[in-house]
Amino acid sequence: MRRLAILFFDVDDTVYPSTGFAERARRVAVEAMIAAGLRAEPEHVLERLGEVIAEHSSNYEYQFDELLRQLGSERHPGVNPAMIIAAGVVAYHDTKFRELTPYPDALEVLRVLARERGLRVGVITEGRAVKQAEKLIRLGFAKFIDPGAVFISEQLGRSKAEPEFYRRVLEELRLEPAETICVGDNPSKDIDPAKEAGMITVLQKRGGKYEGVSGRTRPDYEVRNFNDLLGIIEKDFEIAAR
Amino acid sequence: MRRLAILFFDVDDTVYPSTGFAERARRVAVEAMIAAGLRAEPEHVLERLGEVIAEHSSNYEYQFDELLRQLGSERHPGVNPAMIIAAGVVAYHDTKFRELTPYPDALEVLRVLARERGLRVGVITEGRAVKQAEKLIRLGFAKFIDPGAVFISEQLGRSKAEPEFYRRVLEELRLEPAETICVGDNPSKDIDPAKEAGMITVLQKRGGKYEGVSGRTRPDYEVRNFNDLLGIIEKDFEIAAR
Repeated sequence: MRRLAILFFDVDDTVYPSTGFAERARRVAVEAMIAAGLRAEPEHVLERLGEVIAEHSSNYEYQFDELLRQLGSERHPGVNPAMIIAAGVVAYHDTKFRELTPYPDALEVLRVLARERGLRVGVITEGRAVKQAEKLIRLGFAKFIDPGAVFISEQLGRSKAEPEFYRRVLEELRLEPAETICVGDNPSKDIDPAKEAGMITVLQKRGGKYEGVSGRTRPDYEVRNFNDLLGIIEKDFEIAAR
Repeated sequence: MRRLAILFFDVDDTVYPSTGFAERARRVAVEAMIAAGLRAEPEHVLERLGEVIAEHSSNYEYQFDELLRQLGSERHPGVNPAMIIAAGVVAYHDTKFRELTPYPDALEVLRVLARERGLRVGVITEGRAVKQAEKLIRLGFAKFIDPGAVFISEQLGRSKAEPEFYRRVLEELRLEPAETICVGDNPSKDIDPAKEAGMITVLQKRGGKYEGVSGRTRPDYEVRNFNDLLGIIEKDFEIAAR
């Protein structure tokens, strides 16, 4: 039995299905923009939106602004462009709030580990600080995670792909790397750099976008879901008192 | 009977109760931030938030960021500030979406005028373009207003307090001022400048923040609600065919 002081989880595509969800929300938004007076084919608009997102990875509200500017005013004769952008924003938001749900096993296993077994649970995630924090609240994880153990790339000023990200986390919380587990779906951001920092790594493979991708290092464990993870912790680890 | 080509309405506090609503949403947000780990008294935080809003009138999400910066990190020991900001954002949004409802008479009368009587209905509003457009969609007005007759101060680059705002609207839609009605609650933004541009003005007094305020000019009509407005239009005006 190894001693376990903390478990860090990745957010997008690890504890909720992010990729398909964003695609659906964008499609609903584009359809609403067309219904509000944008004259274009949905597939064409989605393609252009994809280009805008590839270029500016920031706030999607301005991405709709930029999309409309690129499409040109001849695409919405006699309609105030703000009405079209807002139609997209409203549809995107409503889809997001309706469809943003966690993997049930992720929510339940992490809750049991934190609340019933006394494990400290933190987050290591790539993205904008308030957006990622908002997901943790809306998905239901904020209730039991340690709010002092949430690390978001925007705040650290570096990507999760850098082992230095994980070293900074260990240093800030004064953790022994061998007593920390990191779980995620992305070999190059959740596994390789964490392993290089000496942490225990768990790769979750549940049919997401990194399914066929291998990293530079082998994860310590591979799981299909959080129930598998719970089994591993019960078998191999002793949870440290907080 | 006078000929009526279009009716423009103001949004905030004219077709929905904006002022009390924003205050409630801010209070709920502050309470959520305190529950998420902000150590301060609600009244103190609300006061500081009021100062931040007075200084930066823009996007409220950054107002919570700024609020937390001003309060200082000693106010949230051991808690990632993004978790507190996001708690405020989520609470504010949820309150907004739950409580954002139109005055029922405003929605019903404007719908009847637009859909059943064939009156062209437009909007003249102060604020940020996409935010104001989003309100029109969420409040239910977007379904029957003319999306080419929506004028928002951010887009025109000037305040509604300037008669030039109203002259630009008339010019853009090639309207005779004497055939246009403007309805609003604010004497200095909805009545005086519209009247100076030659338009017919209707001041709605339903107990809002401008209740005791008089403008430079007298409105052509005063109403308590949109049912009164409907009576005036039926009595004094002939709706022009679109």
